[in-house]
Amino acid sequence: MILILKPNIGTDSREYRRIEEHLKNFQNIETRVHRVQGAEQVLTEIYLIGSTAALSLEEMRSFPGVEHVVRVSEEYRVLGRHKDDNRSNRFTYNGVQFSQGNLNIFAGLCAVDSPESVETMMKALQENEQVCTRMGAYKPRTSPYSFQGHGKNCLPFVFELAGKYGIKVIAMEITHESHINEIREALEKTGNPTGVMLQIGTRNTQNFELLKSVGRQQEFPVLLKRGFGITLDESLHAAEYLASEGNQKVVFGLRGMKTNIGDPHRNMVDFAHIPVVKRLTRMPVCIDPSHSVGGRHRSSDQILDIMHVTAQGVIAGANMILVDFHPDPGVALVDGPQALRLNELPQFLEDVRMVRETYERRVALFSDVNMKSSEA
Amino acid sequence: MILILKPNIGTDSREYRRIEEHLKNFQNIETRVHRVQGAEQVLTEIYLIGSTAALSLEEMRSFPGVEHVVRVSEEYRVLGRHKDDNRSNRFTYNGVQFSQGNLNIFAGLCAVDSPESVETMMKALQENEQVCTRMGAYKPRTSPYSFQGHGKNCLPFVFELAGKYGIKVIAMEITHESHINEIREALEKTGNPTGVMLQIGTRNTQNFELLKSVGRQQEFPVLLKRGFGITLDESLHAAEYLASEGNQKVVFGLRGMKTNIGDPHRNMVDFAHIPVVKRLTRMPVCIDPSHSVGGRHRSSDQILDIMHVTAQGVIAGANMILVDFHPDPGVALVDGPQALRLNELPQFLEDVRMVRETYERRVALFSDVNMKSSEA
Amino acid sequence: MILILKPNIGTDSREYRRIEEHLKNFQNIETRVHRVQGAEQVLTEIYLIGSTAALSLEEMRSFPGVEHVVRVSEEYRVLGRHKDDNRSNRFTYNGVQFSQGNLNIFAGLCAVDSPESVETMMKALQENEQVCTRMGAYKPRTSPYSFQGHGKNCLPFVFELAGKYGIKVIAMEITHESHINEIREALEKTGNPTGVMLQIGTRNTQNFELLKSVGRQQEFPVLLKRGFGITLDESLHAAEYLASEGNQKVVFGLRGMKTNIGDPHRNMVDFAHIPVVKRLTRMPVCIDPSHSVGGRHRSSDQILDIMHVTAQGVIAGANMILVDFHPDPGVALVDGPQALRLNELPQFLEDVRMVRETYERRVALFSDVNMKSSEA
Amino acid sequence: MILILKPNIGTDSREYRRIEEHLKNFQNIETRVHRVQGAEQVLTEIYLIGSTAALSLEEMRSFPGVEHVVRVSEEYRVLGRHKDDNRSNRFTYNGVQFSQGNLNIFAGLCAVDSPESVETMMKALQENEQVCTRMGAYKPRTSPYSFQGHGKNCLPFVFELAGKYGIKVIAMEITHESHINEIREALEKTGNPTGVMLQIGTRNTQNFELLKSVGRQQEFPVLLKRGFGITLDESLHAAEYLASEGNQKVVFGLRGMKTNIGDPHRNMVDFAHIPVVKRLTRMPVCIDPSHSVGGRHRSSDQILDIMHVTAQGVIAGANMILVDFHPDPGVALVDGPQALRLNELPQFLEDVRMVRETYERRVALFSDVNMKSSEA
Repeated sequence: MILILKPNIGTDSREYRRIEEHLKNFQNIETRVHRVQGAEQVLTEIYLIGSTAALSLEEMRSFPGVEHVVRVSEEYRVLGRHKDDNRSNRFTYNGVQFSQGNLNIFAGLCAVDSPESVETMMKALQENEQVCTRMGAYKPRTSPYSFQGHGKNCLPFVFELAGKYGIKVIAMEITHESHINEIREALEKTGNPTGVMLQIGTRNTQNFELLKSVGRQQEFPVLLKRGFGITLDESLHAAEYLASEGNQKVVFGLRGMKTNIGDPHRNMVDFAHIPVVKRLTRMPVCIDPSHSVGGRHRSSDQILDIMHVTAQGVIAGANMILVDFHPDPGVALVDGPQALRLNELPQFLEDVRMVRETYERRVALFSDVNMKSSEA
Repeated sequence: MILILKPNIGTDSREYRRIEEHLKNFQNIETRVHRVQGAEQVLTEIYLIGSTAALSLEEMRSFPGVEHVVRVSEEYRVLGRHKDDNRSNRFTYNGVQFSQGNLNIFAGLCAVDSPESVETMMKALQENEQVCTRMGAYKPRTSPYSFQGHGKNCLPFVFELAGKYGIKVIAMEITHESHINEIREALEKTGNPTGVMLQIGTRNTQNFELLKSVGRQQEFPVLLKRGFGITLDESLHAAEYLASEGNQKVVFGLRGMKTNIGDPHRNMVDFAHIPVVKRLTRMPVCIDPSHSVGGRHRSSDQILDIMHVTAQGVIAGANMILVDFHPDPGVALVDGPQALRLNELPQFLEDVRMVRETYERRVALFSDVNMKSSEA
Repeated sequence: MILILKPNIGTDSREYRRIEEHLKNFQNIETRVHRVQGAEQVLTEIYLIGSTAALSLEEMRSFPGVEHVVRVSEEYRVLGRHKDDNRSNRFTYNGVQFSQGNLNIFAGLCAVDSPESVETMMKALQENEQVCTRMGAYKPRTSPYSFQGHGKNCLPFVFELAGKYGIKVIAMEITHESHINEIREALEKTGNPTGVMLQIGTRNTQNFELLKSVGRQQEFPVLLKRGFGITLDESLHAAEYLASEGNQKVVFGLRGMKTNIGDPHRNMVDFAHIPVVKRLTRMPVCIDPSHSVGGRHRSSDQILDIMHVTAQGVIAGANMILVDFHPDPGVALVDGPQALRLNELPQFLEDVRMVRETYERRVALFSDVNMKSSEA
Repeated sequence: MILILKPNIGTDSREYRRIEEHLKNFQNIETRVHRVQGAEQVLTEIYLIGSTAALSLEEMRSFPGVEHVVRVSEEYRVLGRHKDDNRSNRFTYNGVQFSQGNLNIFAGLCAVDSPESVETMMKALQENEQVCTRMGAYKPRTSPYSFQGHGKNCLPFVFELAGKYGIKVIAMEITHESHINEIREALEKTGNPTGVMLQIGTRNTQNFELLKSVGRQQEFPVLLKRGFGITLDESLHAAEYLASEGNQKVVFGLRGMKTNIGDPHRNMVDFAHIPVVKRLTRMPVCIDPSHSVGGRHRSSDQILDIMHVTAQGVIAGANMILVDFHPDPGVALVDGPQALRLNELPQFLEDVRMVRETYERRVALFSDVNMKSSEA
């Protein structure tokens, strides 16, 4: 059960203490408090875990200070959608809003190679009015003998260049809890010129210890990629490891599933799961067309597969796109063959804009229909 | 190697005999002739199979009567796209055109149950200006103890009602070669009021004997569904069984792949393969959102998953949609839960129209770009 | 519900008519009669399909002529194991017994190429006291341009050579119902020198029309291979298509599942399902190590993978082995690389013998334990 | 390239310095030194990484102090088998030998619950002459709301009881690098009564940071479980992360693959890969029948599926078995349904013994054959 308190009522209030007092009458109920920082106010959510069947919804609602009560199912307690659940699905970070209702584009480098590449990329983003990017510093690679990313050494120049070109959020994969501090320190040293969204890759989706570490901090939002080889349900449970530790600023990322039935694409594109994740949880959904497709093949209509699957994600309501570009894909240290080129950026953005607009018209179309209908 | 003869030059011509004469000089070259009936003319294609490396492209081109010569790779000889291959990807059947450049919608009943359902369905289609439908008479079912479809008994009333409501093409699955004759006879008896596209289901994708039977007739076009459990490449090879027997009026159908990584959808939606099939072959590509999704779940934007994946197919250039509707899904004998309702038909069609229009704008956008660029 | 009549009581008996009379009192119960030819007697089984809940087990048992009554679950009605189900799991064909309790080896040619290969193979089998073999005449191939087998043309010499070398049963894949007659005719013409087990390959596991044709004849037993891409449950349902038409002489074949997680083997070996199939159904279980592994790799213990997976099948109770040998694998027209060589036959057989003996000691070991224990 | 120095020649020797001197002539060659502690001597292996093509095998062999030179392929450098590679595949830990040539059984508790369970288990092991066990203290669970294991709190009593009952090695999963120290400290505090093999579970197979931490210590050997959702090749590469950091005491674990084609088993049993791993690498191979099968189903031969798949692993040369037992499965906190019972332990061990003996006879059989044959 979740008690959402009235705005700005916290755990030091008289109202909270009355609830606390009441709960003492019940055994086996554990209390976990989450503070959710919204744009204008702070919400306090109290999670009651254990034998909550003994509690009455009515009674809990009647406490002064309680705005709303949600009886959660066992699954996806914090991030899930439950009956009569009007908790928000949006958060703002460094001036950028993330929600199930909007779309952010993170075009950038799969792996940081040189300051020159980074600067060229950031400059192109600014010219195209983009304020988000992806920049890989820590790269988990299948073989220990492959290039593993420049790590913390590249952070200072990446952050400085981000600041120079007006980038507000950089999605950056981390593979160890120590990377959080490395990033925090590099940001501080460079004067916090930008923000970072911590990305958990598909190999670490069920690295629960890393998830807990990331979940324990609330400074950086998190992009959790779906794990390959596990079910969607299991990946959504993994997101709960972040949330149950306190961080609800979580975006869920689809990046294709590893199986030969997706051939000749690198992975089996799974963007049909966008509406599923949005129905089951309150997380915004990100797509990664570059890693899903893994190549620059073009169809008979002369459009790249990467652009086709991007459009497929956007037309079904994706909220974030992570896409690889590179000023000179031939010399990229990681995944060059799948990178788009900088001269393709304007059309990519225009394509996404057109398709997003159509998605919004679709929502309006069905909203009209549903309003006229009482059908479930 | 394929020799495409000039329009209306056939195998009884002097030009053909000269080519034939020439080929006698080469051992181990087998000749297979295909007549391709286009909208305005008949094209004769001569497939040379065997040790064609000995033949010179230049020399073959120089024969009078030869319009074009294509050296095919081993794969997908007839239906594939090859270098310098300008063979058409379109055909017309009963007044309806099928190609990689347009879109046809086949809304209808997964399984024919009663004449009333059929009539209600057809009437709704006519009211919405549709001339194609799907109607299942022969239903392959996992268990021998499940309803197997009404078979040939329902054909007369289905065809008559189709004629009454202006339906020009019915997609209809067959599971045995005898069904071709049953359909032909029922059409004749009822005065050919409509046309039929023979559909091969996913369980029979590699039923090569059935494919050969269907391929040997050229009267009915064919919709070949992708096989589950096999690679895309293997399913495309299966299409060659149809074409190598003489029938090139083949549409390739994506219907989702059977694997638990697609959960909670019934199948893993595979519509990202639309551009792949269009790149590798000349077949129009069909999508089956109903069997892919398998349920009527709705996302947080209030749009049904079935409609989302339909949009995903259309935005990437799908050429045909097979979708289940039912006047009363609760009483449908097969797959009721996934059927859309008749009152949802107008919005479904409007949604598809909007998305298709956006697809066409995408093609224009990238066509401009590609024209300005010489990049491969 | 299944009524098993007393031995040699048939549908023309007074006892049967009394049962028939009784059933007229119940609506919606359909009757299907199977005659099961055992070694010494004929059993008549009456399948009651429909609303059998209205029937009383006690009452049905009380009819004279009724030996045993089984209330079947919905699944695998004919071939499944049900509560209190003592129906036999064995049958004899041409002097060879097939059951869940013994083991038959079918070493032979994946595809018949020449009479010389066939004769060399059969001679080697006789020298090693084998009376079964596999011989592929009809070969379903992914591409229509690959060698498709010699078909009916090779049957006469294959059968004659089988007779000459004392082969009693040949496992032979068929892909079309007409092949049954071709085989029957070739056997008759050559004086029935041998027997044939009809094999349905993995591409046709759900070719229900073929299954029905094969099921309607009771002359030849059937080996049904598991389908790739479908669940075990669905493949077991497919076996019911054979049985519900009347042929219960069915062996179920495991041959590996097509998925890249089985790499570097050609397929993912699925022999852990042997005990599952034997628990759920009464079918003997066959393994196909050659197609599962698909190559001649050898481990650090110098034993071929093919022999390792064969041992894995046998140690868990496999009842039949289908294995490719070839006198000269380098010239084999199909799947040469995976074929064992004739000089490996004695060790192969000795290996299987040793492992089978150990399996039997395992059964004895656990039989003792279970006898002493009342644990379910 | 790997230089294996003569026994007891280390990096402080004159011989080593001469090699070092020589290598200075070549650019881009990095040196990494591994000390391999064998039963009687210490081996020094020098890994030369980079542009080693410039080095001559002959010349390197001619250096005094060099016993053997191996030119490695790119793949699985440290743990792989390479041409002319006679490096050992065995190691000894706390008196127990692990190699590709023997078999160790680790029966025990999936998750430690109470000291009573642990003691009952250990006592039963001692009575059955077992010196290894499995004991789960840190349990990664799909949901954050499930029991996560008793963690470090249970270590002292687990280790003490192990010492009391003569257990020499406990396989214990860890999920965070800090667990290594927790285990080391608990061992020290309790007087090192036993040893621990660190186990990396399937969710962390590609948690490269954890692998590096575990690889940097050489005190504890490691059991690396195969990752689900990735190919065998990728899992073997993960093992290189351990070895390239210095720890070569690695056992590779097969535990079934997560896919619905394995239904009704919990995972698709993958023990056919035993000979593959032994061919490609020098790692001993472990099987986990409990997690593969996931239930206590029994076949028509009255043998549990878990015992059948164990036999399948052993007959193909498995070197280690991890198997769940529980004194009272009904109260087990994790995976109770798949646990064997203590009264089944003697028969389990006897079954394994019989099958292992047969495996050894198989090796002898084929060893004779191969000796007589020159065939590759």
